[in-house]
Amino acid sequence: MKKPAWVIEKERARRAAAAETVWLFGLHTVRDALVNPRRERLRLIVSRNAADKLADPIAAAGMEPEIADPRRFPAPLDPSSVHQGAALEVKPLDWGGLQELCAPRGPQDAPRVVLLDRVTDPHNAGAILRSAEVFGARAVIAPARHAAPETGALAKAASGALERQPYVRLRNLATAMEQLKAMGYLLAGLDGSGEADLPVLAGQAAGRPLGLVLGAEGAGLRARTAELCDRLVRIPASGDFGSLNVSNAAAVALYATRS
Amino acid sequence: MKKPAWVIEKERARRAAAAETVWLFGLHTVRDALVNPRRERLRLIVSRNAADKLADPIAAAGMEPEIADPRRFPAPLDPSSVHQGAALEVKPLDWGGLQELCAPRGPQDAPRVVLLDRVTDPHNAGAILRSAEVFGARAVIAPARHAAPETGALAKAASGALERQPYVRLRNLATAMEQLKAMGYLLAGLDGSGEADLPVLAGQAAGRPLGLVLGAEGAGLRARTAELCDRLVRIPASGDFGSLNVSNAAAVALYATRS
Repeated sequence: MKKPAWVIEKERARRAAAAETVWLFGLHTVRDALVNPRRERLRLIVSRNAADKLADPIAAAGMEPEIADPRRFPAPLDPSSVHQGAALEVKPLDWGGLQELCAPRGPQDAPRVVLLDRVTDPHNAGAILRSAEVFGARAVIAPARHAAPETGALAKAASGALERQPYVRLRNLATAMEQLKAMGYLLAGLDGSGEADLPVLAGQAAGRPLGLVLGAEGAGLRARTAELCDRLVRIPASGDFGSLNVSNAAAVALYATRS
Repeated sequence: MKKPAWVIEKERARRAAAAETVWLFGLHTVRDALVNPRRERLRLIVSRNAADKLADPIAAAGMEPEIADPRRFPAPLDPSSVHQGAALEVKPLDWGGLQELCAPRGPQDAPRVVLLDRVTDPHNAGAILRSAEVFGARAVIAPARHAAPETGALAKAASGALERQPYVRLRNLATAMEQLKAMGYLLAGLDGSGEADLPVLAGQAAGRPLGLVLGAEGAGLRARTAELCDRLVRIPASGDFGSLNVSNAAAVALYATRS
């Protein structure tokens, strides 16, 4: 039996609306999102116990929580999610455009950004957000597709950094790279085949805007992405074997080139 | 009904034997373990497809694989394990004692080791093994209890490094720290409250043996562990918020103090 057009339309609208919201979970993550003035919050589901623990942030956010039995928790979470009796539906954060976020704020300004080329693992993306925050990067930039979406799992791995560190998803990574170059950024792709090594890059990037570009594990940078980098840089290794986890490579590169 | 003594004894022996073996899984991990001459291999279960892909390493290892249907895969793996039709039962690697592994090999030798105080997450421990290998650390040392055991999940996160990078579990971390000090190691605990910062430590540790001590996320170093460190060191951060994932902190510290 064919569905009537209005049913199809309604389902489509529901799917679209669903795609635009995120369920955060876990006490720390929910607390961080409750106290973030930039967060648009939609629905809060908590156990009696979690409601007590989160009483102050819930009051500060002015939300009316739905109290639920933690064993039959009604939030639409993956069964493996350790929600600790707390789930909060939110809208993704709006960090504004690339120009606004990343443009140097004067001739002495040497901002850092991280660009991720198909890093889809939420644990890696979350850890990279933490490192970007610690080392003061202006933004972490990823394409809209083939990237780790802003999910509860990413928020948990980011351990609060998702609320504070701009994570910007843009339709086209190549376009973003061109825009950053136009703003004066040096773009360095991290790649085992790179000719320069990281300490050399650190010297070259001192005092100027720098974008660190990292590819997915295994696949590395795509050819088009590597071409758009001003140079490819390798992290010095003591032997011929092994490679760093992508979030570890990002942390090392951010540390080495911190401004 | 009471079990007869011989049944109890047999069950105990089976449990003991089971605890001493590890099921590795996934094409890359199994391949690495098949070609490692140090590995004691017990049982190999592969799909027809995986048997083709691993034909050379299986031949090199001289093993007779059991061919299985990947949809009813008989290896005792966690259901979330992405085994790709390949599972290999092995004994944990024997890396020998602390003295043998870590003692400086001459007056100019400046080995690095990593000590983990209750880092139980296999993804973090695996990523730390990768970084330790890349930066040439002599060993990663953890206590026998309250540490990430050598499992298939850790092997997968370690992406081959588990086969090559010594991961040594000792009964008592404090004793290991005393032994390293007796060998001339400087022990630096990574801690946000540290008075020295990492670039300063890098200068102090140049040319001498160095142990980097990291604690679990959240809890940090235990009081006894912190006391046994020669100094506590922090990673320079640009703001007041956030903290690094423990594997990211280890990678940054290994990079900054590489010899």
